[in-house]
Amino acid sequence: MKGFFEPESIAVVGASSNPGKGGFALISNLKEKFTGKLYPINPGHEEVCGIPSFRSVLELPHPPGLAVIFVNAEAVPPVLEECGRTGIRRVMIQSAGFAETGERGVQLQKQCVSIARKCSIRIWGPNCMGIVDARSGMVASFMRPDIWRGRLRPGNVSLIVQSGMLTAGFLVQILSEKYIGLSKACSIGNRCDVNECDILEYFAQDGTTKVVALYLESIADVPRFRAAVTKLNRPVVLLKGGVSLEGARAAESHTGSLAGDASLAEGFFKQMKIHRAWDFMEMVDLARALDLWQGREGGKRMAVLTFSGASGIVASDYFEKFGMTVSPLSQTTLDSLKSIFPSWMAPRNPVDLWPAIEKVGREAYGLALESLGRDPLVDGIYIHLYVDRVLLPGILQSLNVLKSIKKRTAMWVIGDTSCFGTLREHVEPLGVPVYTEVGRGARALSLMARSDP
Amino acid sequence: MKGFFEPESIAVVGASSNPGKGGFALISNLKEKFTGKLYPINPGHEEVCGIPSFRSVLELPHPPGLAVIFVNAEAVPPVLEECGRTGIRRVMIQSAGFAETGERGVQLQKQCVSIARKCSIRIWGPNCMGIVDARSGMVASFMRPDIWRGRLRPGNVSLIVQSGMLTAGFLVQILSEKYIGLSKACSIGNRCDVNECDILEYFAQDGTTKVVALYLESIADVPRFRAAVTKLNRPVVLLKGGVSLEGARAAESHTGSLAGDASLAEGFFKQMKIHRAWDFMEMVDLARALDLWQGREGGKRMAVLTFSGASGIVASDYFEKFGMTVSPLSQTTLDSLKSIFPSWMAPRNPVDLWPAIEKVGREAYGLALESLGRDPLVDGIYIHLYVDRVLLPGILQSLNVLKSIKKRTAMWVIGDTSCFGTLREHVEPLGVPVYTEVGRGARALSLMARSDP
Repeated sequence: MKGFFEPESIAVVGASSNPGKGGFALISNLKEKFTGKLYPINPGHEEVCGIPSFRSVLELPHPPGLAVIFVNAEAVPPVLEECGRTGIRRVMIQSAGFAETGERGVQLQKQCVSIARKCSIRIWGPNCMGIVDARSGMVASFMRPDIWRGRLRPGNVSLIVQSGMLTAGFLVQILSEKYIGLSKACSIGNRCDVNECDILEYFAQDGTTKVVALYLESIADVPRFRAAVTKLNRPVVLLKGGVSLEGARAAESHTGSLAGDASLAEGFFKQMKIHRAWDFMEMVDLARALDLWQGREGGKRMAVLTFSGASGIVASDYFEKFGMTVSPLSQTTLDSLKSIFPSWMAPRNPVDLWPAIEKVGREAYGLALESLGRDPLVDGIYIHLYVDRVLLPGILQSLNVLKSIKKRTAMWVIGDTSCFGTLREHVEPLGVPVYTEVGRGARALSLMARSDP
Repeated sequence: MKGFFEPESIAVVGASSNPGKGGFALISNLKEKFTGKLYPINPGHEEVCGIPSFRSVLELPHPPGLAVIFVNAEAVPPVLEECGRTGIRRVMIQSAGFAETGERGVQLQKQCVSIARKCSIRIWGPNCMGIVDARSGMVASFMRPDIWRGRLRPGNVSLIVQSGMLTAGFLVQILSEKYIGLSKACSIGNRCDVNECDILEYFAQDGTTKVVALYLESIADVPRFRAAVTKLNRPVVLLKGGVSLEGARAAESHTGSLAGDASLAEGFFKQMKIHRAWDFMEMVDLARALDLWQGREGGKRMAVLTFSGASGIVASDYFEKFGMTVSPLSQTTLDSLKSIFPSWMAPRNPVDLWPAIEKVGREAYGLALESLGRDPLVDGIYIHLYVDRVLLPGILQSLNVLKSIKKRTAMWVIGDTSCFGTLREHVEPLGVPVYTEVGRGARALSLMARSDP
């Protein structure tokens, strides 16, 4: 698999000089950061984007480490034959029009698989968007260059998406919101050969992948998947599409894969300690927490620090739903809260901080956080914040104390949404993921709770 | 209740010239748009914000229609006595420090109730943020003027929130994102007298309230609530805090109310056809759909129009979860889709439009939408969109067809989040709420589905 992620040279079959074409984007994207040799292949061009072009892979001086194919589905099998003859051993088919499209597409895909077997070629795809490696900067994908250029934020989370178009959506949203630091985003499409197991096995060797987020419609090979996840030994979040009858029916026509038995899958994933997501951004939100909180696994006893009793209550409802408890506080914490609370108010968890803020000002957040951070009865902290433009600077300052807190800490925010980006940029580097849904943050806090504290 | 929402004159006890104080905000807010007479009350001031001030309500020339009290909790009972003597019959206590704070606060609140009974005073509050009326512009609340000034978007949704601080959070987020058009936002706090039933009864008479969203920790008076909701005869969304044991415990200390039996409540709300929300923004998101889709109740047969098979599958999973079906399409629709689909692809629901977009361009969305809008087998449409800055203008244009679609239609969007605001401003006036979670939009579409089509 290393050859797909770190090829020394890449041929792009279907390279184009027309900026409206995916074959143009492929070359532009690779030109940007890929440091190996690049071979555009197009019978009608002398050069593509300033790089000398070849009429076919047969004319290449050496077999490249990887060939990316982006031509009409019908034209793929003959190209594959040529790749085989040239000695190319890794091919990524990004074209659509295969098993996801009906009988003819199924045939074409089968034909590709049989050619590949004959020629010892590994195929990635078809019907996929390829690989974006935020660490190396290699973007082997037909997506538009403006989508990712200048926006990649290298990090620890790797995505595997069994879908074509969705991967771009994920990437753009992640990049535009600076949600998470990415290692690799892999769009595997119809996975007629290379599947999630191959990639998970590769990630087990990959020092830069610390959390894996998966969107899958089925598991290609269950025993191998089990072994790969075990060997990976890193947190995995999975959004499984097609868990319902309606969804499974839709999945069949999407990537041509059978979604399988839902209740069976439930037990399997639970046993594997795979975290389940049920929606796309939830998958990203949970991966983000798992990344920020590495090494902070712990118990189930949560504290809520809030400006509003109501959000403390709804958080408590969610904690119970997710198997967590709202912890009693130690005497030391109670005493220290008492010192900032008005005399009429007895400190308890959830900690409603508003009266204290009215009494001692914004520092109340910092003081309360310090106490909870040291409280041996508390395993995780859920901070609820109201922000607007006037309050934001003071709030950011009072949150610097987060640096010293080593417990799982999440934040829920409500208020002026134009402040949310700044807030996130300030606190996420301190290890605190920010959410806009109370339930989302509560769910995240529950992910890393050990069953037996 | 009309006297609380449309008082001809208001006295503000605790009015202040200090811009840092809530008593200053109260006067500033009311000065802005409230057209009745305004009486600041403060023993230490001659005038507040340019308005002549009185030492106590006893000195007022006439009893005002409403007195808003924002002084320390301990000072509230004597003020209430004075209100009674002056002939004031409606008092809104915005101060905190009552039943939500412990024994002494409980006593103070009881004292207020007994004075009110003796003097035939109706009390709104205590521990609340009062009323924001986006229709009349009357803001009877201690929240900072900059929070709402120039941002009120008059509309049809009224909020009732059994909480103090949270209301401001709701308002600011709603106003900053232009989420929904508001009629009235009511923060009822500890509701020692006026409760949600009084307000619901008033809304039944109020032509500008077409949807009601409620955050409650308990129902003050179950039989009366039932009658009020029945008489209201408008869609109601309820977020009930304290549905769990942990949550109920927290609720008790928040607004001093007992949260009651969860499973009993379940059945009751279901029977009343009250839509349940489980999170704060979900409540707003569902209310928004109910507002935009007035008169579009219908069946359960959904169509999904998407750029990505994966999101169509996850939407199908959610539809099944929420009791909806993914409908077969009529022959007319299939034929018209066939005309824009590439030859290798058979149209089906979910409609994966990407290959059609590649074939005929962005108009594919418009053409497909028109067909689904006319399809007698389809009751609602879920549009999935990928947006970025390059594609946005074309997408907006292709969505103008939404004007002519009278079915419940929701949109899920992924991509560059900086485009989401423009998208929302374009399509929500066309009756299409925009969501960023697949599950949220699917839930919204299920709200107005009749059990027997």
